[in-house]
Amino acid sequence: MVGPFGGITAAQALAAVMRDARRLGEPVALTVNFCAPLALGDFDIEVQPVRTNRSTQHWTVTVSQRGETVLTATAMTALRRPTFSAVEVAPPPAPPPAQVPPLPPLNTVEWLNRYTLRYVSGGLPAQWDGADVGDSRTVLWVQDAPPRPLDYAALTAMADVFYPRIWRRRAQRVPIGTVSLTVYYLADNARLARAQDRPLLGQATAQGYHAGYFDQSAQLWSEAGELLATTHQIVYFKE
Amino acid sequence: MVGPFGGITAAQALAAVMRDARRLGEPVALTVNFCAPLALGDFDIEVQPVRTNRSTQHWTVTVSQRGETVLTATAMTALRRPTFSAVEVAPPPAPPPAQVPPLPPLNTVEWLNRYTLRYVSGGLPAQWDGADVGDSRTVLWVQDAPPRPLDYAALTAMADVFYPRIWRRRAQRVPIGTVSLTVYYLADNARLARAQDRPLLGQATAQGYHAGYFDQSAQLWSEAGELLATTHQIVYFKE
Repeated sequence: MVGPFGGITAAQALAAVMRDARRLGEPVALTVNFCAPLALGDFDIEVQPVRTNRSTQHWTVTVSQRGETVLTATAMTALRRPTFSAVEVAPPPAPPPAQVPPLPPLNTVEWLNRYTLRYVSGGLPAQWDGADVGDSRTVLWVQDAPPRPLDYAALTAMADVFYPRIWRRRAQRVPIGTVSLTVYYLADNARLARAQDRPLLGQATAQGYHAGYFDQSAQLWSEAGELLATTHQIVYFKE
Repeated sequence: MVGPFGGITAAQALAAVMRDARRLGEPVALTVNFCAPLALGDFDIEVQPVRTNRSTQHWTVTVSQRGETVLTATAMTALRRPTFSAVEVAPPPAPPPAQVPPLPPLNTVEWLNRYTLRYVSGGLPAQWDGADVGDSRTVLWVQDAPPRPLDYAALTAMADVFYPRIWRRRAQRVPIGTVSLTVYYLADNARLARAQDRPLLGQATAQGYHAGYFDQSAQLWSEAGELLATTHQIVYFKE
């Protein structure tokens, strides 16, 4: 991959907003753009509330390292109130997490050690034989390892927990890099709290691949089936 | 609605990047955040290429009016090359545009006069009776009026041409406002050119509604069935 796990960087961008004393309400939307790979070492996060309204607030975030911009982001937070609540995307059928074997430790990249991943369907290809399987859907249970109560930063990182759809689609580990990632939070604080420290159900798929980029969409539900976040990303790929 | 047609504002943000002499390649991703309603009158657009790599470029955009930020955006452009190309979301079945009657002039908001809209399914509710129809899907043909060759700015505006999904879902015109809109461009220049000035097929649906916000996802295809853009937005709603 072009850089390290983008999920943790996205989570850090959001966390910087959430920890700011000026912050109003809960996160509604976050978009992070990965401008360059983050190197091991210090980096600076600058957050700015660019517009504060009565019940909404818009933020810009910049992450820089050695004086260069490596990430730009925008976030929107809001005071949320109970309203009409419904979903149009049902969680896919899945056995309870305890019935799905966890992925054994891979010792490839560190961030994989920080999750318990249970693939219901669409796991990593058994053979990297370049066969076009015609579909890229993955359904999995994901949980922090060790388990801990879900917060918005953790939810943000989990939005990027799916391996690149083109690897699934083509059974080929082509070079990739997420360029831009958006998270929409359908969970207010109450819904987030109900998710506790239990596994979340995730589903990811691609819509289109063309001229070096593909898009990837995913949903995350609580174990009880409440929609917590929908997320989208566009990813560079080679070949 | 909280502000005027966001599509034109998003298109103006992108156009400012496209017209910049420093711009590298074609657009891949755009996210615009609507911080406050734009008032009739002058406004300033400031674009900044924050990071230029060998074949990609990241931009920030700020629109201000009377010294206040009304919109923030990020965009990414890139030199695109032919690669593996595929789709996983097929265009929905639809009769050819000539067989679908256009929406008659409504004389409500000006931007509607600038499009020929032909609803295949999921048009505006015949009765605003508050019945929850359980689904929010709309399929339509959209074309600039008068017709003109498609460019990236026009495609960007069309990403916001769908009326708010909650109006369809609940048959109720509740107050709404798009907060953040993302467009992923699956069309390189060649694919864009092939779309000519013909109608595009669009499909929009929501995933979740909760605590004052819902998300809306859409796709736009050329008349010949090539995927041009996928787009997502999160929308404030009341009640």
